Amino acid sequence: MPPDPRPYIEGVRSGDRRMLAKTITLIESRLLSHQDLTQSVIDGLLPFTGHAIRLGITGVPGVGKSTFIESLGLHLVEQGRRVAVLAVDPSSARSGGSIMGDKTRMEKLAVHEHAFIRPSPAGRTLGGVSRKTRESMLVCEAGGFDVIIVETVGVGQSEYAVASMVDFFLVLMLAGAGDELQGIKRGLLEMADAVAINKADGDNIDAAERAKKAYENAMHLMTPVHPCWTPPILTCSALAHKGIDDVWQMILRHREMLTSRGELNLKRQEQAISWMHQLLEEGLKKWFYEKAEVRERLKDVSRHIETGKTHPTAAVRQILDLLPQSDPKSNPKSLQPK
Amino acid sequence: MPPDPRPYIEGVRSGDRRMLAKTITLIESRLLSHQDLTQSVIDGLLPFTGHAIRLGITGVPGVGKSTFIESLGLHLVEQGRRVAVLAVDPSSARSGGSIMGDKTRMEKLAVHEHAFIRPSPAGRTLGGVSRKTRESMLVCEAGGFDVIIVETVGVGQSEYAVASMVDFFLVLMLAGAGDELQGIKRGLLEMADAVAINKADGDNIDAAERAKKAYENAMHLMTPVHPCWTPPILTCSALAHKGIDDVWQMILRHREMLTSRGELNLKRQEQAISWMHQLLEEGLKKWFYEKAEVRERLKDVSRHIETGKTHPTAAVRQILDLLPQSDPKSNPKSLQPK
Repeated sequence: MPPDPRPYIEGVRSGDRRMLAKTITLIESRLLSHQDLTQSVIDGLLPFTGHAIRLGITGVPGVGKSTFIESLGLHLVEQGRRVAVLAVDPSSARSGGSIMGDKTRMEKLAVHEHAFIRPSPAGRTLGGVSRKTRESMLVCEAGGFDVIIVETVGVGQSEYAVASMVDFFLVLMLAGAGDELQGIKRGLLEMADAVAINKADGDNIDAAERAKKAYENAMHLMTPVHPCWTPPILTCSALAHKGIDDVWQMILRHREMLTSRGELNLKRQEQAISWMHQLLEEGLKKWFYEKAEVRERLKDVSRHIETGKTHPTAAVRQILDLLPQSDPKSNPKSLQPK
Repeated sequence: MPPDPRPYIEGVRSGDRRMLAKTITLIESRLLSHQDLTQSVIDGLLPFTGHAIRLGITGVPGVGKSTFIESLGLHLVEQGRRVAVLAVDPSSARSGGSIMGDKTRMEKLAVHEHAFIRPSPAGRTLGGVSRKTRESMLVCEAGGFDVIIVETVGVGQSEYAVASMVDFFLVLMLAGAGDELQGIKRGLLEMADAVAINKADGDNIDAAERAKKAYENAMHLMTPVHPCWTPPILTCSALAHKGIDDVWQMILRHREMLTSRGELNLKRQEQAISWMHQLLEEGLKKWFYEKAEVRERLKDVSRHIETGKTHPTAAVRQILDLLPQSDPKSNPKSLQPK
């Protein structure tokens, strides 16, 4: 008997946080034996997804992401919303442990009954988007959370991944960062639906206002993501809880704009298509590497590479020869049945 | 007649810098019509590769990577070596242009007759390793360069990619960076063959020495990459050209250690295997998406996703059904010939 997906589906739907965490752990599992169950659980939860505000937040280390997310999260739970945070756990890539502990992140939000924080190990990505962030986001939605926040580290492929799964992509910046950052910032800015300049407090207020002007000018040099939305530049202080509601109201305005034009659905459809391609490529690789012929020839060519008898480029051609060609006669050694 | 690879191969081999640049551009091309030519050029150059010192250099923005690489590069060309740098061009991901211009990077090294600098657009990776960095490195080797330096930005998947194609991976650090960086740093440190604390000059010398001690302690907490090599922590000032030769001598010591134990070859064999897997997956995707049946069904399910008739997870299963299964009878709709 295959394992029963219902306890997971019902547990998540009933708002059971332990089952929510357990379901995400199941989805993140790399065990082959978990794949069918995972699939059934996701299929069972998908009809209950789609209603939440999906928010990506990024910024380079030191910009105050955790403090900002905690401040925004507390603001939202105080309004009665339910907030899930899929957060970067800046832990070791090789050993899985964190050198600093980092247990104090978002400690007020973490204990709130309407909040759920899931630290994803930064793992091999270093950027903080786990392989299964999209699925985890959907599980949280099915679990009744209204706002899902996905955090990334701000320099890396993760930003593209997150921007392609959220409704709103917020970039946190600091006033007066080094010039060398500019190029990277531009890449980020081009994806941004808004920029919030954090740490606009104390002696830093004037610098933050100047940075705001500079970013506003920079934004005019770029092609906007949306023709009707020039990404606003805001200042805030997560530490002093200042400007946080302004950021939130702007996110709601953006949503209103998208919804009234019927574009939220369009955006999500496009995202669903790109998700499909990602899943497709994973499935394709699995199919390929499970073939006995592929595994065998892979062993042979690996030995030939090690002994210097062949080069990787030639080896690859030998293995790809195993794939069935359009005209079967041209390739008798293919995977096709004899 | 297929285009002739010989002008490229001979041009690169003769040290013609224009042909070197042109060959890398060819390799980076995404045009299908360039693929066979690219393949022939690489096959033709591979026998002339393998002799160079392959050096990866990383560090977060602001650490002084360009200045360090210029300082090291000048030091090496003055010794009569030929140095190629595959450098990050921190340009826009969406538009391809750089907001800052950034024309002044490594300007002394760039004009030296024994140096070759190839800026790779950071492109969609944001981290600076282009899809074809490995191939570009091999082209430079075949062109007679003794030292190939590959630069990355220091937070992202690029570091794993680069560490998996070089002989020595150097991490640049600064004294006194924020605590939030620690987690990311650990991920980097675990891949490092050495750490150089840059900007150890002026008022910063004491702080750099303290950082050196701290990193030395941190290194003891980690599993070393190599049992016979505890990654040294050095201080240097690229701006003042101080400590640069120490870094270089250490790189030579590491190489001597690897070579005397026969491990340089082992390391490169492993890297060749991982390169093969990467090429294999690219080839597999190409094969799959070129199938007429796949393209057709992809069109259908995409429409169903857009109209909400199906979910991406179910759509993927429908498309993967097209792949030939081990038992053909179980899957009559497969790609197998009827």
